[in-house]
Amino acid sequence: MPTLTSREWRLKARPVGEPKPTDFEFATTDAPEPGEGQVQVRNLWLTVDPYMRGRMNDVKSYSPPFALGETMTGGAIGEVVASNDPRFSPGDKVSSMMGWREAFTAPAAALSKLPDTNAPPQAFLGVLGMPGLTAYSGLLRIGAPKSGDTVFVSGAAGAVGSLVAQIAKIKGCYVVGSAGGADKCAWLKSIGVDEAIDYKSTGDLRGLIGALRQAAPKGVDVYFDNVGGDHLTAAIDSANVHARLVICGMISIYNASTPQPGPTNMPMIIGKRLRIEGMLVSDHGDMQAEFVRDMTGWINSGKIRYEETVFDGVDKAPEAFLSLFSGGNTGKMLVKVG
Amino acid sequence: MPTLTSREWRLKARPVGEPKPTDFEFATTDAPEPGEGQVQVRNLWLTVDPYMRGRMNDVKSYSPPFALGETMTGGAIGEVVASNDPRFSPGDKVSSMMGWREAFTAPAAALSKLPDTNAPPQAFLGVLGMPGLTAYSGLLRIGAPKSGDTVFVSGAAGAVGSLVAQIAKIKGCYVVGSAGGADKCAWLKSIGVDEAIDYKSTGDLRGLIGALRQAAPKGVDVYFDNVGGDHLTAAIDSANVHARLVICGMISIYNASTPQPGPTNMPMIIGKRLRIEGMLVSDHGDMQAEFVRDMTGWINSGKIRYEETVFDGVDKAPEAFLSLFSGGNTGKMLVKVG
Repeated sequence: MPTLTSREWRLKARPVGEPKPTDFEFATTDAPEPGEGQVQVRNLWLTVDPYMRGRMNDVKSYSPPFALGETMTGGAIGEVVASNDPRFSPGDKVSSMMGWREAFTAPAAALSKLPDTNAPPQAFLGVLGMPGLTAYSGLLRIGAPKSGDTVFVSGAAGAVGSLVAQIAKIKGCYVVGSAGGADKCAWLKSIGVDEAIDYKSTGDLRGLIGALRQAAPKGVDVYFDNVGGDHLTAAIDSANVHARLVICGMISIYNASTPQPGPTNMPMIIGKRLRIEGMLVSDHGDMQAEFVRDMTGWINSGKIRYEETVFDGVDKAPEAFLSLFSGGNTGKMLVKVG
Repeated sequence: MPTLTSREWRLKARPVGEPKPTDFEFATTDAPEPGEGQVQVRNLWLTVDPYMRGRMNDVKSYSPPFALGETMTGGAIGEVVASNDPRFSPGDKVSSMMGWREAFTAPAAALSKLPDTNAPPQAFLGVLGMPGLTAYSGLLRIGAPKSGDTVFVSGAAGAVGSLVAQIAKIKGCYVVGSAGGADKCAWLKSIGVDEAIDYKSTGDLRGLIGALRQAAPKGVDVYFDNVGGDHLTAAIDSANVHARLVICGMISIYNASTPQPGPTNMPMIIGKRLRIEGMLVSDHGDMQAEFVRDMTGWINSGKIRYEETVFDGVDKAPEAFLSLFSGGNTGKMLVKVG
């Protein structure tokens, strides 16, 4: 059982505004042979997700901040190389939160064996993983769409948004999605979205409001927010009475170095009796079994399609992460390690 | 059955920003003797409420805008003078939406007889009327406080806020209220509020945030918003995980002539999984019987106290209305007509 060499990324400086490559440090370390109860793993896939931006700030939030000088962490899929725990054997595919590195040795409790399915392993970082459950629980439990409702989803070409859009179609809704650029909008139409708004071509807030009013002529019953900022303002503008606004992400303002003003149409919340509700997937673990059953069925029957955008090599992890904020991904952003 | 002379207020111009006395016109008209199925009423009390500001704008909203040149309408309590309908007799006390005038003749269907209680008639414009049901349904159904929760209410010395604060105390909550001025804060303490914030003395947003953090050291579980603006930002700042924010009013921005920016801390909605929900009392009529039973009991047992601020004479209605926006009222703002 040899020691493995592992290249890994550490947070070197807390970003101010948009993260810079120099905020990260690439280092080489060892994944030693596993001690009692430990497992040695070589990573195959890493995920980078928008929520990681918040953890780079030194503020109390729902997950603790990344520590300076420590390895960046995040979801990863790997293969067991050596095991000193009876629950794992070499060759097992495992998921962990030990991302942003090539290999590691950790207690068995830090790992979960992947279910035995015909899905590719990296699907457990996307459609069958955290982004999938986020879309499923956020839309169905908090958004609670009824057949015939109009659902508007921002960041609709992203890992979560593209699943929200398709689940809403499965549930019989009229779906409007926004994304940046004609290619993404064409892809959205190809996966069944009724109207796609290219927010890069609509101009300012007034343009986005106009585009949404046109794309959702009956108004919006459920808004799934991945973007925040002007998108939330436009959604409030088009919201119907008793609409539900699921606030899952606000990628448009995560990199802001000063506090950003909220929607200018807040009084509409009263007259329309809107319900605006924030969500974290960690509150919805009780839906995991139902989610995997439904999602696996939808994938196998062709009702859910998913896309991946892949950066090759652990050295590309920061680049992949930064690319999220310029819309570099269609579907799930991944880093292929092995 | 003589014709009655009635002085009344009409909307002369749509206010821009803060309404001016010249936006209203005082006119004299007749309340004729009642025809078949009609009732002639002399008003005793009128209510002026913040929501009326929205109806002065020519925008589609939950209630249609007031028409220019027409009599202003709103809740009123009156006494039947003459009746041509078997359901009403002279001397009956009735409530209607025929406010801002001294007398009127209307179809019987526009009137409701007051219940036979020991409450003074004007209580049905306040503690036992629309503001009372607003406080009761908004706090209990949407805010859903549990015993031991911290409840923060803005505009706590107002008609709705002062009832929210006291109902929250009845439900075993720790209650923080904000109001403008030392006198109102002293009154809040006298009705059982645990901590009163004089927002006129806290300075800017930073000051208000600091004052709320100090007054609610365990954080805020339920926020009842009558004010909007900085108060909502401060409430989001102090909100606990899974807090409920009941958005009932935003009096601080009703008179703004340009759109006002929303809270600068919107991303906290996600991490704290806040639920921000707008309300209108008209959605909660199903709670009317339960509300009247509970509220009557609480008043009779001394658990709910209420205050009135009274302007004397129908000619004072615009003055009373405008005074709402400078905090001229403690408790319910009323105009005594008769």
